[in-house]
Amino acid sequence: MNFAIKGDILYSYDKKTLVSKKDSYVVCENGISQGIFKTLPNKYKGIKIYDYTNKLIIPGLVDMHLHAPQYSFMGLHMDLELIEWLNKYTFPEESKYKNMKYAKLAYDIFVNELKKSPTTRFSLFATIHVPATLYLMEKLEKTNLKGFVGKVNMDRNSVKSLQEKTSESIRDTLKWVEKSQDFKNIKPIITPRFTPSCSDELMLDLSNIVKDKNLPVQSHISENRAEIKWVKELVSGINCYEDAYDKFELLGTHTNTIMAHYVWPDEKGIEKIKKNKVWIAHSPSSNRNLSSGLAPIKRYLDMGIKVGLATDIAGGSYISMFRAMEDAITVGKIRSCVVDNNHNGVNLKEAFYMATKGGGSFFGKVGSFEKGYEFDALVLDESKIPTVLMPKLNIAERFERFVYMGNGMISGKFVFGKKIV
Amino acid sequence: MNFAIKGDILYSYDKKTLVSKKDSYVVCENGISQGIFKTLPNKYKGIKIYDYTNKLIIPGLVDMHLHAPQYSFMGLHMDLELIEWLNKYTFPEESKYKNMKYAKLAYDIFVNELKKSPTTRFSLFATIHVPATLYLMEKLEKTNLKGFVGKVNMDRNSVKSLQEKTSESIRDTLKWVEKSQDFKNIKPIITPRFTPSCSDELMLDLSNIVKDKNLPVQSHISENRAEIKWVKELVSGINCYEDAYDKFELLGTHTNTIMAHYVWPDEKGIEKIKKNKVWIAHSPSSNRNLSSGLAPIKRYLDMGIKVGLATDIAGGSYISMFRAMEDAITVGKIRSCVVDNNHNGVNLKEAFYMATKGGGSFFGKVGSFEKGYEFDALVLDESKIPTVLMPKLNIAERFERFVYMGNGMISGKFVFGKKIV
Repeated sequence: MNFAIKGDILYSYDKKTLVSKKDSYVVCENGISQGIFKTLPNKYKGIKIYDYTNKLIIPGLVDMHLHAPQYSFMGLHMDLELIEWLNKYTFPEESKYKNMKYAKLAYDIFVNELKKSPTTRFSLFATIHVPATLYLMEKLEKTNLKGFVGKVNMDRNSVKSLQEKTSESIRDTLKWVEKSQDFKNIKPIITPRFTPSCSDELMLDLSNIVKDKNLPVQSHISENRAEIKWVKELVSGINCYEDAYDKFELLGTHTNTIMAHYVWPDEKGIEKIKKNKVWIAHSPSSNRNLSSGLAPIKRYLDMGIKVGLATDIAGGSYISMFRAMEDAITVGKIRSCVVDNNHNGVNLKEAFYMATKGGGSFFGKVGSFEKGYEFDALVLDESKIPTVLMPKLNIAERFERFVYMGNGMISGKFVFGKKIV
Repeated sequence: MNFAIKGDILYSYDKKTLVSKKDSYVVCENGISQGIFKTLPNKYKGIKIYDYTNKLIIPGLVDMHLHAPQYSFMGLHMDLELIEWLNKYTFPEESKYKNMKYAKLAYDIFVNELKKSPTTRFSLFATIHVPATLYLMEKLEKTNLKGFVGKVNMDRNSVKSLQEKTSESIRDTLKWVEKSQDFKNIKPIITPRFTPSCSDELMLDLSNIVKDKNLPVQSHISENRAEIKWVKELVSGINCYEDAYDKFELLGTHTNTIMAHYVWPDEKGIEKIKKNKVWIAHSPSSNRNLSSGLAPIKRYLDMGIKVGLATDIAGGSYISMFRAMEDAITVGKIRSCVVDNNHNGVNLKEAFYMATKGGGSFFGKVGSFEKGYEFDALVLDESKIPTVLMPKLNIAERFERFVYMGNGMISGKFVFGKKIV
């Protein structure tokens, strides 16, 4: 089915270049963008038009890392750092998802909020529980959002109620991957929680599943300094956290891989991240809330490492990817000021790139309106932003204000050509 | 006129102590709190009751530093550091307030937004222009909000369109102070913009006005490292920025004084700040947006220095003091992590204290529901926060979630016993 949307269009061509087209059309043919037109070509005369004249239209936003079961306590218990926070609040909460009654209630709320949010694509963590994870995938499938969901693996250093035997973790993973084949919009992603939660044996078995089934991988890396120290004690024969995944060929060796956070890179490890084309999921909100640190995102971008943005619910305390953009900029500025002292922080163009094409590339041709890209779009609602009294703003300036003042309010949302909101 | 409000009440007793009272009353008599009661005493039987049962009620929030004329470009032009930002964007915008037509349009929007916001008390900067500043004070007077407004003084290093002659700056200040006497809710505050904008002669004359008229003072201090270096070049015989105000007895010597930012304290200067009981206005949003740095707020609190929170519109990019609380916490955590490395950041209790009693003390007995405090209150609207599926939250937990997830939405607002919203 073909249609077009009309309005003031902005997208990120690359991390240095914004493209804006006033009062133009983006044409969608079978879920794929046919590009931007000032006037509709004859071949498209008569197709359905969604008229958003004078409204801002941008590509959909990609949330590269969040935890669906943690949405239930987002904005609470922000008083601890990573390891203590996991043990005291997070693991006990995730344990509740063994109970399907609880899981259904909680996931129904989460899926409803995600559907209304500016997020169009995502890669998220569920829990270790197969039935609850399949329920979450079913609910997400129906929204027509697209993304990856991971049944979490963890066979050590958890609370008793949230720890698997290695054999059962693998058996459940294979069962879950099998049952996930029914879904079109939602795909499985292999998800060892992080090295402290996964024995060498489990990592090795998961690595084999990745190779056999050709599945993508997501995990956490180098988020917190105490965590990094612990990992070096847990895994023999490694020099850095990066090696703890590379040792088991889980650092982008065979497949697309997302590593969340990467706040504290190792100078040797960072070369492997780059060489293996690992996507880094940057969550500035989580990195502040858990006192993790200031990730050197500008350096990653300048090195050509793949970086996307993430909310990291519930380490992160909001669902709006516009807040993630704002925080990527401000956290990057603070790092440039107090750590690098080089006046070279992350800017709006780079944040917009990371939130669209940067993360989108994990999903294929996603994150732009250029011809051939999957048609994901957001229509921004600027109605609550008080009028400024200055020469009429251009499209990029209106977008900047929206990032800071728009509260993530959208009046339209499309994913792969389907209207969601 | 006496009345009571009923609901779930939370206030900050001191920076370590939250007080919460489920389903209770706060009684207001002639604008003054009579304290909190589980059941209304007989003497209050029959008074008007605002019934906010099951809603959270907290003291009003105090914005210690913001620039009213900058609201018109809030959320724009976040690409420069302080001095360049002032010259390229801020000074040209403030120049427009010479034109009363522009000033009226812009200030009408600002005052309307401030009235709807969670802010009940404020100390703000206007521009150098007397007619526009008096118009702003008239509009604010009518809202029944309470606060200080400063006609800005600047006789050097500005753009041509926004620079006064010293004599004219003093003459206009005296005229403005005279005309400000009509207002009840809004009071004048002497406002040398900051040392780079004010000659020694101007500082001296303003200091004399402060003494003659017994007026409070507000200015900026030690916000940006380049600024501090410049100040040491501009003023002879000083060792630190603090001395540049102290030299003219404008650092809390004779009167209540607010100094905004104070990101980079001098080890000798900080003792003068403490000794002279200067209030520091901490604006975490502005300090990030302008790459100013990470203010050592936890240290100030531990030293017993007076600290309040501020939005610093438009260096800050939001009007909600709840965002200022959130950012005070997260920016404090980041400083504790990357600068102090002491796991001792600013916590929610301290942020709440700074936003209420900490800043409120500048206005008298303001920022609490204890008997004898001026009755400023906010009723919080939690309706947009998705239900969490966990044991029923207590009042302090609900408040924490509201700070992170509430979007500053209020369903009631009182200042000195008058209902504003």
